[in-house]
Amino acid sequence: MTPGAEIACNPSPSPAHLLLVECPDRRGLVHEITGVLFRHQCNVTSNHEFVDAQANRFFMRTEFLGDVEASEILEETSRLLPAGGTARLAPRGKRRVVVFASCEHHCLADLLVRHAFNEINAELLAVISNHETLRSLVEKFGIPFHHVGHEGRTREDHEAAIQKRLAALQPEWLVLAKYMRVLSAGFVARYAHRTVNIHHSFLPAFVGAKPYQQAFARGVKVIGATAHFVTERLDEGPIIVQQVIPVDHTHSAADMAQAGRDVEQIVLSRALKLVFEERVFLHGNRTIIFD
Amino acid sequence: MTPGAEIACNPSPSPAHLLLVECPDRRGLVHEITGVLFRHQCNVTSNHEFVDAQANRFFMRTEFLGDVEASEILEETSRLLPAGGTARLAPRGKRRVVVFASCEHHCLADLLVRHAFNEINAELLAVISNHETLRSLVEKFGIPFHHVGHEGRTREDHEAAIQKRLAALQPEWLVLAKYMRVLSAGFVARYAHRTVNIHHSFLPAFVGAKPYQQAFARGVKVIGATAHFVTERLDEGPIIVQQVIPVDHTHSAADMAQAGRDVEQIVLSRALKLVFEERVFLHGNRTIIFD
Amino acid sequence: MTPGAEIACNPSPSPAHLLLVECPDRRGLVHEITGVLFRHQCNVTSNHEFVDAQANRFFMRTEFLGDVEASEILEETSRLLPAGGTARLAPRGKRRVVVFASCEHHCLADLLVRHAFNEINAELLAVISNHETLRSLVEKFGIPFHHVGHEGRTREDHEAAIQKRLAALQPEWLVLAKYMRVLSAGFVARYAHRTVNIHHSFLPAFVGAKPYQQAFARGVKVIGATAHFVTERLDEGPIIVQQVIPVDHTHSAADMAQAGRDVEQIVLSRALKLVFEERVFLHGNRTIIFD
Amino acid sequence: MTPGAEIACNPSPSPAHLLLVECPDRRGLVHEITGVLFRHQCNVTSNHEFVDAQANRFFMRTEFLGDVEASEILEETSRLLPAGGTARLAPRGKRRVVVFASCEHHCLADLLVRHAFNEINAELLAVISNHETLRSLVEKFGIPFHHVGHEGRTREDHEAAIQKRLAALQPEWLVLAKYMRVLSAGFVARYAHRTVNIHHSFLPAFVGAKPYQQAFARGVKVIGATAHFVTERLDEGPIIVQQVIPVDHTHSAADMAQAGRDVEQIVLSRALKLVFEERVFLHGNRTIIFD
Repeated sequence: MTPGAEIACNPSPSPAHLLLVECPDRRGLVHEITGVLFRHQCNVTSNHEFVDAQANRFFMRTEFLGDVEASEILEETSRLLPAGGTARLAPRGKRRVVVFASCEHHCLADLLVRHAFNEINAELLAVISNHETLRSLVEKFGIPFHHVGHEGRTREDHEAAIQKRLAALQPEWLVLAKYMRVLSAGFVARYAHRTVNIHHSFLPAFVGAKPYQQAFARGVKVIGATAHFVTERLDEGPIIVQQVIPVDHTHSAADMAQAGRDVEQIVLSRALKLVFEERVFLHGNRTIIFD
Repeated sequence: MTPGAEIACNPSPSPAHLLLVECPDRRGLVHEITGVLFRHQCNVTSNHEFVDAQANRFFMRTEFLGDVEASEILEETSRLLPAGGTARLAPRGKRRVVVFASCEHHCLADLLVRHAFNEINAELLAVISNHETLRSLVEKFGIPFHHVGHEGRTREDHEAAIQKRLAALQPEWLVLAKYMRVLSAGFVARYAHRTVNIHHSFLPAFVGAKPYQQAFARGVKVIGATAHFVTERLDEGPIIVQQVIPVDHTHSAADMAQAGRDVEQIVLSRALKLVFEERVFLHGNRTIIFD
Repeated sequence: MTPGAEIACNPSPSPAHLLLVECPDRRGLVHEITGVLFRHQCNVTSNHEFVDAQANRFFMRTEFLGDVEASEILEETSRLLPAGGTARLAPRGKRRVVVFASCEHHCLADLLVRHAFNEINAELLAVISNHETLRSLVEKFGIPFHHVGHEGRTREDHEAAIQKRLAALQPEWLVLAKYMRVLSAGFVARYAHRTVNIHHSFLPAFVGAKPYQQAFARGVKVIGATAHFVTERLDEGPIIVQQVIPVDHTHSAADMAQAGRDVEQIVLSRALKLVFEERVFLHGNRTIIFD
Repeated sequence: MTPGAEIACNPSPSPAHLLLVECPDRRGLVHEITGVLFRHQCNVTSNHEFVDAQANRFFMRTEFLGDVEASEILEETSRLLPAGGTARLAPRGKRRVVVFASCEHHCLADLLVRHAFNEINAELLAVISNHETLRSLVEKFGIPFHHVGHEGRTREDHEAAIQKRLAALQPEWLVLAKYMRVLSAGFVARYAHRTVNIHHSFLPAFVGAKPYQQAFARGVKVIGATAHFVTERLDEGPIIVQQVIPVDHTHSAADMAQAGRDVEQIVLSRALKLVFEERVFLHGNRTIIFD
């Protein structure tokens, strides 16, 4: 009960352009890149840059307004970058996403709600699951639910069946929202750095199976969750978001799993917001995040 | 992607009895109360006690198993308490709850999901709103949605219309999930200490309207949310849960409102879990929470 | 016990120049200011800018290296700013600081240790206290301790005695490290925005006396501390750093006070680091912090 | 600047007795143990119990007041425990402690200040260091400083020289306050479960050398610190306290090390408070903490 609403529902997304640059660092880059925008009479509404001094690498994310041919901006910017640099303009629509789930609902439900209320820059094309459990939840929100069971199938067969679904859906991104099957290296490679996973520990602690059981056995006083890009090596891809919560001796492994759900949900939703708004640069096995 | 699920869906609720005691403190209370349970061959599975030494008041929450007439336990316990003490057994079913909402969805959606997956000890009887905005969300989950508009009505008329709904529903608890109307003292009094509100600031900072605007104007570096019991005096009832998140100069009031949503949702859901599991004792304007 | 030290003791301070700009916003400022540095062949090692879009105000903090006459950089930058703008170069030595304390040691001890190990950009000229309690602590570290008792003196007399000390010491900054006397408006005005105070609550909750008593009485579930600039109005100056910790029903007011000490100490030390490294811009009653 | 002090300096320690019990769980233990105290007319001022249901083990920590022969309480309690149980009364004086340090000052300085102001239940007998760096700090506080250099010595010789010091000092506890040498298994075994170490990561992430370098390389978004008992296996002893802080791509490994200092200091100081107040029970490789 609080008088006076403060939030307009569903603010329309910004019509700004988004320029993303990375290149070897050298003196004057900010001056020169902002010069391109200045000459085209664009207005920079948000700008972030970062130099990794050790690696001599420059990163920049610039939102700008202006009645321009964005491709001209891109071309002029690209021309002034040192060799080994790249500039790109972010696509302006929503990212096309397929979500994988198993039988836990919390991360998936959170995405469905945020999607329904237009809070993430993504179009959920479908949910693929190896269980029927979450069909009813997904279909409530009008999103197609594809059950691709793994029972009685080899991993190759199972993944082939999933690939067939993906071939039809043509997603740009995969999200593993508590998907409890290990994907093969070959599968992962097709979507490397385009797959976001939520792992229920603060990596690199407790890689692999049953992190909460491991956490309980080790007697830790904090547990956490990690959203990361999936690479060929399980749980070793670049980390996007991590968060922890305290636990104590009264928590069984099952209690930890329950307490961990909220943090998993928050961490995944935060990571997807960052990724789909093009706020994350990959830099080796690390991420640069302009928030 | 993590091999091996750790969580069984929807664990069945514990069949334990729950004894709740408060009374003036005196020597030997724990010994005597546990003696009652011991004589009846009950097994204490969880026990919390607290003594407010300054106020000389004793509080105890005991979960126990046993094939007993619970009413005998209650009677024997009541008999040994000092004057001014009370013992009660928690009802074993779910709490009957009506939720009030306006046009923000996040707290409500969270409750609907947790309810759907049996995560809170509550039966959602209905959602009452002064806007139509959230009907579609609520009805997805099969919960009745009652629009009781306030436009063109006096507060008295509006509240009378709501009361009529409540009379039919007979809830034990009201939850104000970002309900943006101030309820009259008379209305509130009927459900005093049986209404839980989420206020979007860390009370007592920023009572009243537009807490995020106030927080922005004051230039604070943390914002937060407070779940509290509603009493006759707006925003001054006993606090159940509070949590904060950091903000900085880049946050406009609107950014704060957006960042605050996640913490509001977590704080309310946490408070309701505690309240509906009978983990909260009122003690003047303070709460004792056995978690 | 960990093999291999990772920290060199007392890294020498950076020899970088530090340019601080604020002005009405207009298109191209970053481009033009970085252009000045580029033409002088300076290397920007760290750059932060922020535009308050609502107030149309631009802020920039730039660290740069270069074998230049810094005054030329300053002059050229100043020339290109819109009317109402200012540019300045931060002084390169340490800030001259006098600390006020009463009888609590924790914030003061923390500053003394950090000063002794060269961790803050400040020279502690003296500690002034209305009690003798902390003399031994202060003198251990070779810092002059001036007892200026308030007993049997009017506030005017007491402040005049303090002013006499300050006149001799000529500090740039005052730090109130749990100083338990209210300073007069006149006194404060002399050092307005050059005095940093630690208040033991998350302002604006619990302004004034005995915040922990107030927090206990209100039954809050978090307590905190606020470092802020002192202005004429007690506890209402611009906030620099805030942090909180959870408390529960087992905490008496005295327990809260004890639990709060660590957070007070961290918050003050963090604020002073920011202020003395010129990372804090004042903007009305708010602060912009480039960290 | 806050009117009215809230904290009395150096509150005298409680004259309460402290009974510590652990044993196989069975029905009625709380009732029976509190019965002993009740019959002796003791007043329980604080009581914590915990049952590890999986391991069927009961733990209890009880503070009580009463003009009794504590040894009688102990004897009667011991008599009623199941086989395999132990009861003990905590010694009432301060714990005798030797601190090991190398060249980082922050954890050590924190202990010295807390010791000087009587904030921890410990008497610091001496500081032993393999460097001369911190002699001046330690001697300011009137604590003996023993330099036992490791250069030009085998580990055996070095540890023998330390042992000689310890033999003279007869400490009950060792604290490794950023001690940067690995102790041999034999050395550790002599003080197993009586040595507390601060490790600068959230274990089990980043065991071994250079945790901040490892954290940087892995690109984590939180770093932390762990206080734990030392056992024969490096970094694998029971965890007492853990805490984390967020980091991002702007933190070099050196920045992380600096940011981590505050959390190391807090975590160690918190752990020592708990240990020296007998609030920590060991339970296999886990700890039960009654706080």
